[in-house]
Amino acid sequence: MEIISEQKCFGGVQGFYQHASHSTGTNMRFAVFQPPQAKTGSVPLLFFLAGLTCTEETATIKAGMQQFAAKHGLMLVMPDTSPRGLDISGEDDDWDFGTGAGFYLDAIRLPWAKNYNMGSYVSNELRGFILNNFNARPDKAGISGHSMGGHGALTIGLKHPDIFQSVSAFAPICAPIQCPWGQKAFTGYLGEDKSLWREYDATELVRQHPTQNMILIDQGNEDGFLEEQLHPHLFETACNAAGQPLNLRFHEGYDHSYYFIQSFIEDHIEHHAAILNND
Amino acid sequence: MEIISEQKCFGGVQGFYQHASHSTGTNMRFAVFQPPQAKTGSVPLLFFLAGLTCTEETATIKAGMQQFAAKHGLMLVMPDTSPRGLDISGEDDDWDFGTGAGFYLDAIRLPWAKNYNMGSYVSNELRGFILNNFNARPDKAGISGHSMGGHGALTIGLKHPDIFQSVSAFAPICAPIQCPWGQKAFTGYLGEDKSLWREYDATELVRQHPTQNMILIDQGNEDGFLEEQLHPHLFETACNAAGQPLNLRFHEGYDHSYYFIQSFIEDHIEHHAAILNND
Repeated sequence: MEIISEQKCFGGVQGFYQHASHSTGTNMRFAVFQPPQAKTGSVPLLFFLAGLTCTEETATIKAGMQQFAAKHGLMLVMPDTSPRGLDISGEDDDWDFGTGAGFYLDAIRLPWAKNYNMGSYVSNELRGFILNNFNARPDKAGISGHSMGGHGALTIGLKHPDIFQSVSAFAPICAPIQCPWGQKAFTGYLGEDKSLWREYDATELVRQHPTQNMILIDQGNEDGFLEEQLHPHLFETACNAAGQPLNLRFHEGYDHSYYFIQSFIEDHIEHHAAILNND
Repeated sequence: MEIISEQKCFGGVQGFYQHASHSTGTNMRFAVFQPPQAKTGSVPLLFFLAGLTCTEETATIKAGMQQFAAKHGLMLVMPDTSPRGLDISGEDDDWDFGTGAGFYLDAIRLPWAKNYNMGSYVSNELRGFILNNFNARPDKAGISGHSMGGHGALTIGLKHPDIFQSVSAFAPICAPIQCPWGQKAFTGYLGEDKSLWREYDATELVRQHPTQNMILIDQGNEDGFLEEQLHPHLFETACNAAGQPLNLRFHEGYDHSYYFIQSFIEDHIEHHAAILNND
């Protein structure tokens, strides 16, 4: 592991790191916030997955998470949003596909299948790497994210409820099969067989595999992507039908930005802390 | 005034704006956070001046100020750090002079004198413009800032204690006459006559014009610029000699970054709120 930087923050350590990933075949950057409590004992992990075009730095500097993670003793992990620098044809053509748009899945279509494996990277490789290199509890983890990262948090959380006991999201892509961002990404990464898409669609997953864990979702009413891309009501309907506990909150006047996220991040950290610190 | 964007944040409005400035002869961008309290009454103003290379967006998205401004009912104003796009020879050659490095003074040396007037822009023009366009109290204002912006906050605050009743700074350039950043800027903007430099040096100003207002300064011990550029002890000695109330705090392990600033911004907002809301 290469330490890019480590800076004191709220009594803990905000670090940026790089490691060689076998999931992506590239060097991957990620950020970790070690709360002060990690100096004296292992603490729960909370992953925060960022959205389209973002990097490991975006939520780290914009979301205002550290103060509440320090208060509740959670270690924050912010991965990058895709492999980078592969020089795959078309990788950098669009802002919603390829670089910065890994969609937290494992690609099966060429030329993406070898490297675009952010699904197993986040849920398996990076999590294992953090457990081996930081003072984190192996039995307590939560996952959250924003937009494409909210899609990642919901789908990974629903698929691995044993690993991620707490799940939340800001303005997540709730039904990617039914929105342009998801259709473009899934066609590109997974191919035309739509039966393969269901594994990465929160609304489909929750029908098959509801969990006991309450999911918290915050959504701004003035979010410009709400109507075409996000579809929280489809997820809500599926949760209700499947018996999945869901707390879906709409916020008047708020948009899709980190000014929205920082306004409600305290509630999310408390949501995760209440579950993860409950032993 | 052109509205670039307005976004809901902590129940208030985070906006970015542009106006034609007569102080600089350019269009100037600035950010304003209107707390929820400004919907129903006028509220005190708190200016936050950013450092070298920064813009009106830097502290706005990185410092985590809005949550505490919303709590205490303060309106935040974040100016840019210099005029931009003037095409003056040498303007973009260095990161510590010219664009992004206005040093919150009024230049007297050509070719800078016509435009590089961030001192009167911030303390006079922008403040008046805010009072005319937002629901802010004309009788209550505070000023804070970081690094070069901390220098701006201290010098403008010391020169206008009637306007700015509360002053604070993070890692300010406390004695620019005695550090390389200040010497380069003052030589370029003010010329070789060092008697003219004193008007923009907090350590010199406080000797002549101490105020009754307690100044709060936070400084990280691991700040890489501390020894060569910042000199808080010189300012402390001058404050002690002049009877200027000062609360200078050193923080073990913290550096010069916004991870340091966000760790202590709550104390600064409370410092300003205690003075500005005291009527």
